[in-house]
Amino acid sequence: MNFKDIIIKKRDGLELRQKEIEFIVQGISSGILPAYQISAWAMAVYFQGMSALETELLTKSMAASGQTLDLSRVEGICVDKHSTGGVGDKTTLVVIPLVAAAGVPVAKMSGRGLGHTGGTIDKLESIPGFKVDLEHDEFIGQINRIKAALISQSGNLVPADKILYALRDVTGTVESRPLIASSIMSKKIAAGAQGIVLDVKIGSGAFMKNKDEAYQLTELMVQIGKKLNREMVAILSYNDQPLGRAVGNSLEVIEAIDTLKGKGPADLTELSITLAAYMLILGHKFAHFAEAEAWVREAIELGIGFAKLQDIVWAQGGRLNWEADDYGLAPADWVFTVTSERDGYIRNLDAYALGNIAMNLGAGRQKIGDIIDHRVGLEILVKNHQLVTKGQDIARIHASSETSGLQAQKLLRDVYMITDFPAATSNPLIWDIVT
Amino acid sequence: MNFKDIIIKKRDGLELRQKEIEFIVQGISSGILPAYQISAWAMAVYFQGMSALETELLTKSMAASGQTLDLSRVEGICVDKHSTGGVGDKTTLVVIPLVAAAGVPVAKMSGRGLGHTGGTIDKLESIPGFKVDLEHDEFIGQINRIKAALISQSGNLVPADKILYALRDVTGTVESRPLIASSIMSKKIAAGAQGIVLDVKIGSGAFMKNKDEAYQLTELMVQIGKKLNREMVAILSYNDQPLGRAVGNSLEVIEAIDTLKGKGPADLTELSITLAAYMLILGHKFAHFAEAEAWVREAIELGIGFAKLQDIVWAQGGRLNWEADDYGLAPADWVFTVTSERDGYIRNLDAYALGNIAMNLGAGRQKIGDIIDHRVGLEILVKNHQLVTKGQDIARIHASSETSGLQAQKLLRDVYMITDFPAATSNPLIWDIVT
Repeated sequence: MNFKDIIIKKRDGLELRQKEIEFIVQGISSGILPAYQISAWAMAVYFQGMSALETELLTKSMAASGQTLDLSRVEGICVDKHSTGGVGDKTTLVVIPLVAAAGVPVAKMSGRGLGHTGGTIDKLESIPGFKVDLEHDEFIGQINRIKAALISQSGNLVPADKILYALRDVTGTVESRPLIASSIMSKKIAAGAQGIVLDVKIGSGAFMKNKDEAYQLTELMVQIGKKLNREMVAILSYNDQPLGRAVGNSLEVIEAIDTLKGKGPADLTELSITLAAYMLILGHKFAHFAEAEAWVREAIELGIGFAKLQDIVWAQGGRLNWEADDYGLAPADWVFTVTSERDGYIRNLDAYALGNIAMNLGAGRQKIGDIIDHRVGLEILVKNHQLVTKGQDIARIHASSETSGLQAQKLLRDVYMITDFPAATSNPLIWDIVT
Repeated sequence: MNFKDIIIKKRDGLELRQKEIEFIVQGISSGILPAYQISAWAMAVYFQGMSALETELLTKSMAASGQTLDLSRVEGICVDKHSTGGVGDKTTLVVIPLVAAAGVPVAKMSGRGLGHTGGTIDKLESIPGFKVDLEHDEFIGQINRIKAALISQSGNLVPADKILYALRDVTGTVESRPLIASSIMSKKIAAGAQGIVLDVKIGSGAFMKNKDEAYQLTELMVQIGKKLNREMVAILSYNDQPLGRAVGNSLEVIEAIDTLKGKGPADLTELSITLAAYMLILGHKFAHFAEAEAWVREAIELGIGFAKLQDIVWAQGGRLNWEADDYGLAPADWVFTVTSERDGYIRNLDAYALGNIAMNLGAGRQKIGDIIDHRVGLEILVKNHQLVTKGQDIARIHASSETSGLQAQKLLRDVYMITDFPAATSNPLIWDIVT
């Protein structure tokens, strides 16, 4: 087989066959195919797209390109969740304990944050002593014992995606629906769970700004998952303003625990309940959404999810003070508040801008390898449509230095738009469910 | 400037600015830009095209990327010709002496052949002693003395094109009109002549199979040349069957000399006269085509072109026996004939197939660096529409071994299609002239 001929075939809009797709994926992981041909192929895919079958074959082939997580020794039907990334998205920390508390096993592999969005592993690492690397036996053992474990993604999971993504990132070929879908889904397939709930984010804080594009991507991912024998549900949720109040690692851990104790912000609580309920359905615990949702609400009220989180943190070596307001997490050295300069309604709060301010405080990484500060971040005290009065606290800044805190304060003032009337319309938190 | 942003700009269909195009070309020649970004950009250009301005800027920038031929010391208005390549195309050998004989200087740089088409330098090298590498002073001196010199293309002429073309060749991005136009025109611009006559070939033996595509490419090249202050004429000519009878290096030299002596095949003679006449117009020797054409016809009749070729060959060290039928060129060891198996009319003679048979005999190169045999090739004794009778010789094969000759004989029989009636229509030799 000749890669040039395959590139031309794709360039001319023809469908690639299974052998050709396998040739590409194996050539990428083995390093045999030169980068200049891979990037030309990716650009041809950008323009010509891929059929559903091609995308499914690409996903399957990528999933098989490296190590896969063997969950055969896990008792029960393993479920997983994946968010495409948003600002303030700490749902994993809320959802996993709730699902595990219902007896449905969760073998969760997460990543680190980059740019304006955070990563679950960074959040977990703000808990003193929490181990994100477990041996396979330890991982499976913990899941069978307490129904959940959260670890950092293995280095050899889908190596083809790692190489391809790095190339796409520098050649203007990231924004291709079949390439995005196969990148996400190949990792989920390799991660081994039987049921997968996707949380596809739309809006300024999300990777996807465009609603139609997000919808089509979601349908494609659900379709691929089903073809590869996974049970799938996808939630399309808005991230035009941050989810919840906290943006920054230990602040988000605190908020997630608060939510499990029933005193979290409404948007985070609602989205977490929905995600957990669908995971319980895919885990065959409940047949109907209403039952599943009712169970999850009760689990929060009764503190069952909170208790399960304590088990998980304990099992993975984490040490928290469960009685303290901040659960014993170290505070930042500097705290500044931002107050409203007038009476009015909050409008167009920009998750992307807020995510970047938090990143610049040190909560996130500008580039891979940057060191982050788990203590810093933002508390967004008021959100879109809320009425504020002059002088009211609207945000709190947790900073590692006076300079960075004052700079964030200045930037935050510009992000807040306060008007005489509230916006006429607003985006729902959950836009649609695709099954 | 950031190449990724430029790739995305082109991908999204926006026009690149001068600085961005210069950044790309300089980055390619200096080796600073990675091949994987260049190929992604070329694929984006394949899909989005380039505006006339972008193509002009790319051409100019590429022409300036390496050495350029300084013709300032040449007396008179230098003219050049370029063929996009066809099977049996030996017009350069006929045209240059005719133009030089009229006193219009020609500083001709040519290339070697690849694939099913030949190259002028290979043809010249079948002449014993002919030097295709001249020092610059020697080159200019010869032009001023006898009005013409033919040399091999300098290694450092348009290095950006060399790198870009090699990448395009393996990434499915050859077939892009602005990239083809800038590749050809940058070399012509760097070669320094004031007037350029292009011979764009269409048909099975040519690079361009499609008439509309060839026409648009031609118009683009003429437009670019004019923008860069060149006088331009382009001829669109068919190469669905070979030009003339001879395919193969010394056979083509013999046929070219025959043509200069007035006994060449009609198609080669007519195309050469047209090309030479337009070169004389661009050289400001004549104002009107009719005058120029009449002069060229007379130059053939009077043997003035033939005498000029003798001067050129002599000046560059070549030694031929001008009295002999084969001009003293060494014959191939084996000669086979192909005879017609029936009475009828020749139809659909395929230049591409014939070019490949000649290449396999050793007349051309399958890949760069292959050694060629100047003596081998084909004589196509009858062409489309001609009536033949059973047993008549229709082709002659000049081979270096019995095996290769017999193989060619077998293949040639399959190429000839002989039918009871001649084809109703036929393509004209010259399809159009673009000025």
